[in-house]
Amino acid sequence: MQAKAPQRQTSPHAARPTEGGRVYNYNAGPSMLPYAVLQRMQDEWLNWRGTGVGIIEISHRSPEFEAMLGETDELLRRLLGLPEDYAIIYCHGGGQMQFSMVPLNLLGLKPARKALYTETGSFAARAVEEAARHGFVRVIASSRNTGYDRIPAWEPDALDPEASYLHITTNNTAMGTRWQTFPQVEGVELVGDMTSEILSREFDPRAFGLFYAGAQKNLAPAGLAMAFVRRDLLGHALPETPNLLNYTALEEKHSLVNTVSTYSIYVMRLWLEWVEEQGGVAAMERMAEERAAAVYGALDENRGFYRPHALPGHRSTQNVVFNLPDAELLGRFLSEAEQHGLYALAGHPQVGGVRASLYNGMPVAGAHALADFMMDFVRRNG
Amino acid sequence: MQAKAPQRQTSPHAARPTEGGRVYNYNAGPSMLPYAVLQRMQDEWLNWRGTGVGIIEISHRSPEFEAMLGETDELLRRLLGLPEDYAIIYCHGGGQMQFSMVPLNLLGLKPARKALYTETGSFAARAVEEAARHGFVRVIASSRNTGYDRIPAWEPDALDPEASYLHITTNNTAMGTRWQTFPQVEGVELVGDMTSEILSREFDPRAFGLFYAGAQKNLAPAGLAMAFVRRDLLGHALPETPNLLNYTALEEKHSLVNTVSTYSIYVMRLWLEWVEEQGGVAAMERMAEERAAAVYGALDENRGFYRPHALPGHRSTQNVVFNLPDAELLGRFLSEAEQHGLYALAGHPQVGGVRASLYNGMPVAGAHALADFMMDFVRRNG
Repeated sequence: MQAKAPQRQTSPHAARPTEGGRVYNYNAGPSMLPYAVLQRMQDEWLNWRGTGVGIIEISHRSPEFEAMLGETDELLRRLLGLPEDYAIIYCHGGGQMQFSMVPLNLLGLKPARKALYTETGSFAARAVEEAARHGFVRVIASSRNTGYDRIPAWEPDALDPEASYLHITTNNTAMGTRWQTFPQVEGVELVGDMTSEILSREFDPRAFGLFYAGAQKNLAPAGLAMAFVRRDLLGHALPETPNLLNYTALEEKHSLVNTVSTYSIYVMRLWLEWVEEQGGVAAMERMAEERAAAVYGALDENRGFYRPHALPGHRSTQNVVFNLPDAELLGRFLSEAEQHGLYALAGHPQVGGVRASLYNGMPVAGAHALADFMMDFVRRNG
Repeated sequence: MQAKAPQRQTSPHAARPTEGGRVYNYNAGPSMLPYAVLQRMQDEWLNWRGTGVGIIEISHRSPEFEAMLGETDELLRRLLGLPEDYAIIYCHGGGQMQFSMVPLNLLGLKPARKALYTETGSFAARAVEEAARHGFVRVIASSRNTGYDRIPAWEPDALDPEASYLHITTNNTAMGTRWQTFPQVEGVELVGDMTSEILSREFDPRAFGLFYAGAQKNLAPAGLAMAFVRRDLLGHALPETPNLLNYTALEEKHSLVNTVSTYSIYVMRLWLEWVEEQGGVAAMERMAEERAAAVYGALDENRGFYRPHALPGHRSTQNVVFNLPDAELLGRFLSEAEQHGLYALAGHPQVGGVRASLYNGMPVAGAHALADFMMDFVRRNG
């Protein structure tokens, strides 16, 4: 076997300590963190910022935590280029809780209680189901019939002006597709689920009235989600909205309505600082493109063997999804990969095959390691 | 000043490393963890169970995580003596999300959509507000008029048989009171918010149809809550219940409807193991009583000086709340305490004064350290 764990150093971000049996982890989330961030957490674990207590022991009402929360706000605002008229809201429950929070908070913008959705994957479909509990939902475009292999075309005529918003999933984690450009809409607000690509791609926040992301891919540990809401959209929550799911109530108390996920915010604070040190979102995007180019390159060079899920022109830089000619080869691929320190490459249960998630915490060398392994696997089995 | 950081060792659990500037932390939650648990987490931080990835990087769908989740279930079941006909449910959002989940899931048990509440503190009052969004709520007993200094008497006649449940807050974190015994009710289900005393007190789970606890005091980091539900109460969620707030949906997927708070569950797993090694809940209760006796002893010996908030006979073992003769003395008390390594003793904003939270993670020596300081403070200022 020639495809070894990678020593090729393609960029300053490629370096990765391999001591202690660490592997490349292609999980879709929770997922790999930058090693420097993990080490910093370990170092200050028992006594955070001289308080004499660990970060998971400190109160969300302490001045030290509140200062750190403010620093996190500032980092997010700088990295995203977020205008001051957008609120930053820390929410419980991950991205999926937003599937309820968005309709509970925005359906009331207009009397019809109506929303438009695009269905580009299994998570988008769940967002539709949750919204339908609270109002009238119309799916204006879907790629379900082609196995979610693309971002479907949609008719601008479908933009019913009685609807409060149009929801898109900007990157589809399980399917490996993404919106290459975001739709420009008028008369309704655009809402984006950016869970699996936030901070890996430059974009203008003003394209959205609200965008959100579960934290466990590019931001922080599982359980937290971030919502970014233009302030004029606040104040319209439906009466049945639980207080903890009400953006307005959260915004009023700097998200400290109850005990926020203190530890997750701490991790995010460190991770954001790392992103800034690397050169911000522009640098993350370059790395994302470099990683994606390596793995898609190996796919395209071996077209008769590997079967990419996403159509060209619809490909995600964050999740590369493909299959092998048969189940036996797939099983061998996954098991040999694991022996080579390439961990957690099995696809989403609904799609099968292979999925390589290549988020900000994945060194570029990790993508090259996978590409090398893919090339070698074809040579031996193609 | 004689009251030094404590060297008195009153039990095997009193030992506490003081190196590295660690302090006694009386925060009401997040709060102090056993030092041995913190050290274990630090040790295995970069490579958990030989996976080659850290615990915050591992997927909730990985076999390693699912095995650990099963171990956590078993530990909870053993420690609580929880019968098999009770489900264990891991929820997002902390105790306060349960203020909504309980009514959304249980109001539908009977056609009247009605629930009964007892109002014994500010959190109990918030639980009432949230329930009222979804049905008809009646408060059958309240101690609001006496500043929540007691558990109020209540009339068994008030147990309207059309109500689905009666909600109590078994320990009132901000007020320092607790239900010394739990009400025996017939015809309605008893629901208990045990956030600030779970695992510190022996009780029969069958007293409750459902009991729950936010994690950040005696279980795990902030953001997680645990609900324990008798299975025959499942299946009655109101149609507007978000899927993530539906106990039945969670139970069907072993709480893996979305990405559960993997890291918090890992901490809980280690902490529960520690509790079991110490002798289980019986040992935790003995330690709780020893800690409470030390601090209440110092209060009672200096009755003219310190002003306890809770009436005798209503006192919590977990949160000891008291005041000083005036604001100047209070300020001096808090600031001198901090200089002596007694951290975060300020009371809840609504109550003021001093609050010492003495959860399972607080060594018994920490309660004696506080009691010594209180005695000394009176000698110098009384």
